[in-house]
Amino acid sequence: MSSTDLLLTFNTGSSTVKIGIFAIDGAEARRIGRGVIDFRAEPLSLGLTKGPQTFEMPLNAEVTEDLHGVIDETFALLADHFDMTAARAAGHRIVHGGDRFIRAIALDAAAIDAIDALTPLAPLHQPQALRFIRALKHLKPHLAQTASFDTAFHATQDDLVRRFAIPRTLHDEGIKRYGFHGLSYKFIAGELRRKAPRAAKVVVAHLGSGASLCALDDGVSRDCSMGFSTLDGIPMATRPGWLDPGVILHLAGQRKQSFEEIEDLLYHRSGLLGVSGISADTRELLKDGRPQSRQAIDLFTLRIAGEIGRMAATLNGLDAIIFTAGIGEHQPEIRAGVARRLSWLGLAIDEKANAANDFTISTRESRIGAHVVATDEEQIIAEEALSILRDG
Amino acid sequence: MSSTDLLLTFNTGSSTVKIGIFAIDGAEARRIGRGVIDFRAEPLSLGLTKGPQTFEMPLNAEVTEDLHGVIDETFALLADHFDMTAARAAGHRIVHGGDRFIRAIALDAAAIDAIDALTPLAPLHQPQALRFIRALKHLKPHLAQTASFDTAFHATQDDLVRRFAIPRTLHDEGIKRYGFHGLSYKFIAGELRRKAPRAAKVVVAHLGSGASLCALDDGVSRDCSMGFSTLDGIPMATRPGWLDPGVILHLAGQRKQSFEEIEDLLYHRSGLLGVSGISADTRELLKDGRPQSRQAIDLFTLRIAGEIGRMAATLNGLDAIIFTAGIGEHQPEIRAGVARRLSWLGLAIDEKANAANDFTISTRESRIGAHVVATDEEQIIAEEALSILRDG
Repeated sequence: MSSTDLLLTFNTGSSTVKIGIFAIDGAEARRIGRGVIDFRAEPLSLGLTKGPQTFEMPLNAEVTEDLHGVIDETFALLADHFDMTAARAAGHRIVHGGDRFIRAIALDAAAIDAIDALTPLAPLHQPQALRFIRALKHLKPHLAQTASFDTAFHATQDDLVRRFAIPRTLHDEGIKRYGFHGLSYKFIAGELRRKAPRAAKVVVAHLGSGASLCALDDGVSRDCSMGFSTLDGIPMATRPGWLDPGVILHLAGQRKQSFEEIEDLLYHRSGLLGVSGISADTRELLKDGRPQSRQAIDLFTLRIAGEIGRMAATLNGLDAIIFTAGIGEHQPEIRAGVARRLSWLGLAIDEKANAANDFTISTRESRIGAHVVATDEEQIIAEEALSILRDG
Repeated sequence: MSSTDLLLTFNTGSSTVKIGIFAIDGAEARRIGRGVIDFRAEPLSLGLTKGPQTFEMPLNAEVTEDLHGVIDETFALLADHFDMTAARAAGHRIVHGGDRFIRAIALDAAAIDAIDALTPLAPLHQPQALRFIRALKHLKPHLAQTASFDTAFHATQDDLVRRFAIPRTLHDEGIKRYGFHGLSYKFIAGELRRKAPRAAKVVVAHLGSGASLCALDDGVSRDCSMGFSTLDGIPMATRPGWLDPGVILHLAGQRKQSFEEIEDLLYHRSGLLGVSGISADTRELLKDGRPQSRQAIDLFTLRIAGEIGRMAATLNGLDAIIFTAGIGEHQPEIRAGVARRLSWLGLAIDEKANAANDFTISTRESRIGAHVVATDEEQIIAEEALSILRDG
């Protein structure tokens, strides 16, 4: 243990909280540990990684509305490994910042209420993070809390790109394309400035169980495949991506499905799981080999390649594509499948480099670069929190 | 008047019936006249064109459920100009053929019922055509009737391209991408065989008040921007095209809009009309010049260019793009707007040729061809009807 100030990050998903432990090292936030609580597990447990060590520690607390027990116990367990008395701040990932929050902010009561007011735009995501923030504010009032928004990085997008072709009154009321995974894209843009400074027009494929693509021009977001909700764009583990609005009208009008049934279908039973009928996990689908598993993988790569083609039109050019997040960083077959569909653009992949998850996986002759970059959303949350702490 | 056998075509839209009068000339159907009844007009009238002459003839009949009066009077008026006793057949355009009808068919009672059974897939389009077919069968039982399907041309598409990322049981039950405007694309594919035989990988932009794009590989349909319904793809006069499914969940779940309100929004109040708040007509928007009109046009060309990029990935290449239908054939500004967004592909437009609506509007140096081709859906309906008449 050291007496260095610590900074915590909380990345609250629908079923997990990922915790980052950072040391404040001058102007830098340096990761010294990470934890995860899986709310689906019974009993709950905290998985913790500190340097080369990993721990799995059961929690006695149960998931309640106020989360007080879970947070108290988690802080106590963390204190066995880190000097929690040195914790100065907690940075949170918030999915939706609407039009209002286009940069990270300090979380005072008014800001928490303003984020809550955006819940109708992200009814399935916003409440979890807010629950955590309010509990932490109550239990650890000395911690400065900050919020980093998944949508903020995309505020640079042109108004035109953000429009659906719906009445402009609805657009003005907030029904527009916000884009998500912004913390990941901000991290990647930073990496590219250092590692591939000559690639100006870039499409980044953030491929995890949630997945989207982002068009960057000189590191600035110009387009995103996820639009108003986290359903749009490319197929995901259990979400469909692009879907004809007529399908929903058909399910509601002809098949008399309820709103709840359709919502459940789109968030939990579609995507790779729906197409394969077997698994939501690309690793399992690749191993499985049955035609329906192959089909789910093929639809995934077809739609990713198509979206890259669409975004090249937004950018009016394409210098490089980047693969990141769980699938993008670790699954050469998926990257190769996407690249094969883009051979018409002069993209050629080096098989060995791809198999090794190298930074550059395109060949020397390739007209378009292809790279693998590990993302780190929590690093951005920590840096944004630190910047707010220092600048007030 | 001649004693040549005649063939009639009926293209029943949501608010008009377009009538084609064709002479059967050996193995060919040769157009000798055209008419249109606008059901929105009061009183009804039949507009008729025969060679250089045009006529506007009022109808006394009213629009009733069985259309008998309208059809009787129309046939009587047509008889003043054509030898209607020589009429042998009537060919109809049907929007949806589902998986069952992948070519044109003779319309016996069983076929009519089978088409009716597809109404849940096209609840706003199928009933009008069926009403017309049943009335004609009753009034003119001697006329052979045939059906040509908007979906049939796309039956060549790969199963993968036709999939949404939804549960495969729903796909198997028919919730898949069918594609529309197939009669137009079939006509264009025929024209291209003659006029641009070396362009293999082609995207055709059928831009009318309904609008879609089709990816052709050697004249065979490989992809279409309209999927399950006529709402999907690019923005249209009053329909939105691509729309995040989360928008519909938001309207229904957060704003408590009814199914009927959402259906009306998507079919009648979105698209160019919705974005501009001014007009659904690109000609008026181009003239108007206010920022919101400009924005509607820009969104239209942005989405068309993006869809061409997506389809190039489906085709794994792109040799040429084709503009057709009302907007595509006659509006150089729209074509130029799309082409500008595709300059990264090496597409360059010859301004003079574009202004003149020439067949070839790309420059000699352009890496990708760009052409303007007039479409004629009714020619295909007539040819398909004739082929059925001759082959039985």
